[in-house]
Amino acid sequence: MKLKLDKIAILGTGLMGGSLGRTLLKNKISKQVVGWGRNIKKLKKALSKKVVTDITLDLKTAVKDADVVLISLPVSIIPEYFKKIYPYLKRKCIVTDMGSVKGKIIKEIKKYDKAAYFIGSHPMVGSEKTGIDNIKDDLYKKGVCIITPDKTTDKTKLEFLKLFWKKVGMQTVLLNPDEHDKYISGISHLPHLLAYLLTLTQEQNIIKRKEIIGRGFLDTTRIAASSEEIWTDIFFDNKNNLLSDIKKYKEKLNEFELLLRKNEKEKIKKLLRKAKFLRGKLQ
Amino acid sequence: MKLKLDKIAILGTGLMGGSLGRTLLKNKISKQVVGWGRNIKKLKKALSKKVVTDITLDLKTAVKDADVVLISLPVSIIPEYFKKIYPYLKRKCIVTDMGSVKGKIIKEIKKYDKAAYFIGSHPMVGSEKTGIDNIKDDLYKKGVCIITPDKTTDKTKLEFLKLFWKKVGMQTVLLNPDEHDKYISGISHLPHLLAYLLTLTQEQNIIKRKEIIGRGFLDTTRIAASSEEIWTDIFFDNKNNLLSDIKKYKEKLNEFELLLRKNEKEKIKKLLRKAKFLRGKLQ
Repeated sequence: MKLKLDKIAILGTGLMGGSLGRTLLKNKISKQVVGWGRNIKKLKKALSKKVVTDITLDLKTAVKDADVVLISLPVSIIPEYFKKIYPYLKRKCIVTDMGSVKGKIIKEIKKYDKAAYFIGSHPMVGSEKTGIDNIKDDLYKKGVCIITPDKTTDKTKLEFLKLFWKKVGMQTVLLNPDEHDKYISGISHLPHLLAYLLTLTQEQNIIKRKEIIGRGFLDTTRIAASSEEIWTDIFFDNKNNLLSDIKKYKEKLNEFELLLRKNEKEKIKKLLRKAKFLRGKLQ
Repeated sequence: MKLKLDKIAILGTGLMGGSLGRTLLKNKISKQVVGWGRNIKKLKKALSKKVVTDITLDLKTAVKDADVVLISLPVSIIPEYFKKIYPYLKRKCIVTDMGSVKGKIIKEIKKYDKAAYFIGSHPMVGSEKTGIDNIKDDLYKKGVCIITPDKTTDKTKLEFLKLFWKKVGMQTVLLNPDEHDKYISGISHLPHLLAYLLTLTQEQNIIKRKEIIGRGFLDTTRIAASSEEIWTDIFFDNKNNLLSDIKKYKEKLNEFELLLRKNEKEKIKKLLRKAKFLRGKLQ
């Protein structure tokens, strides 16, 4: 099935929005890709990097007549921007986002979204790097995009959105917003938090003994170089799930600590063997 | 300065020992590289992979007349094997190891090492993969090797060992055994532990929702696929440092949790900014 749209608007042309614009144009999914942002310099850069066909500082101009609007902004301001663009959307428009938390923002959006424009998306790609200077042509290729419909979601729009992400190069998985937030808390938000905290506890070693830091530490903490703005938002938007995952993590840490203190070598070996087995199930 | 030896013995031809043998032969550092192990099948594989020039199941044959003996075995059995080979070593022989913990094994070894043969080494390379099937030609290239001399170490032997690791392709850093264990606990042992525990807490997601697990989780937990035998040994050999690092980590986790509960958004942003800054100092 082909997908040929006339106009897509991308609100926010950073790493995620910019890389997506590039893919949309490369795969000829839309004739026009309009980039909206608050900073004209960054928008001009997006235009010169052929990430969008048009740029504007005006929200109405950006979203008017668009077939799809992609809100690629930090989670805390997605509902506010949805509210701003709502009056200018055409009847069949689909609005989606790229946010890492869904429950809270969708609850907010539902208050205004009488026309059921919005369906949440979470493309599980990204990088600790941000901004237009780090866009990648193949960021979305072979990735997985979680779509989070709920009871009010229009079936035709949902099918269209699935096709949209497939054309971008992604597999799609459907989860309801609350399930999404619960699972993603454990497999993405908790790992980010642990990496940030591990980095903080090693402040002295990073400053004084950089030369002896090896690949294990570097990989384990790669995501600690992620934007503090984006991740503060995410941690607060998914606060309850994260608190519950922190609790479980602390229990595991205490369990291990006790076994170590009591010299329970065989029990620790068994724990590590199980972890190794589980990790081996992933690529 | 050239380094041309007649005979090097490698006890244990797994990933570390095997990859080193390959490098020693490729760089023509020694005419003979003898591999010793407890499993004849694995030894034959090492021979066929041109990792060593000779193989033997007999320790005496392996180490007799050797200029360098490399003990590439799990940390818990290094002192025991040092004791076994001690009677057969020639006067100027240098014995070193590849272990991740130093204080405890060196204390043990000192009890027997009247001739001061032993100087500890810790090449900061490796992989979550183990065994002869995973050896890599360039495992040691551009890596850092920590050497852990103490007051009893002979200066000539130390200079020789520095040269040895340089010829293998590594930078060398000197630390005393106790400093080594303290720093490495934080930058290697704690990260391994956190990765193992993170994997364990996500058991259900790994089994049921593998398809939505992204790059962040994979990188953060890569080292959780490491050998449970090797890492149980390491955690116990460096128990006190690890317990103290676990304590510090729990304090950071508690600090974050409290800030999240109290909605201290700016304070959390500041913490994450600091972590991002620190992580940015590493490659």
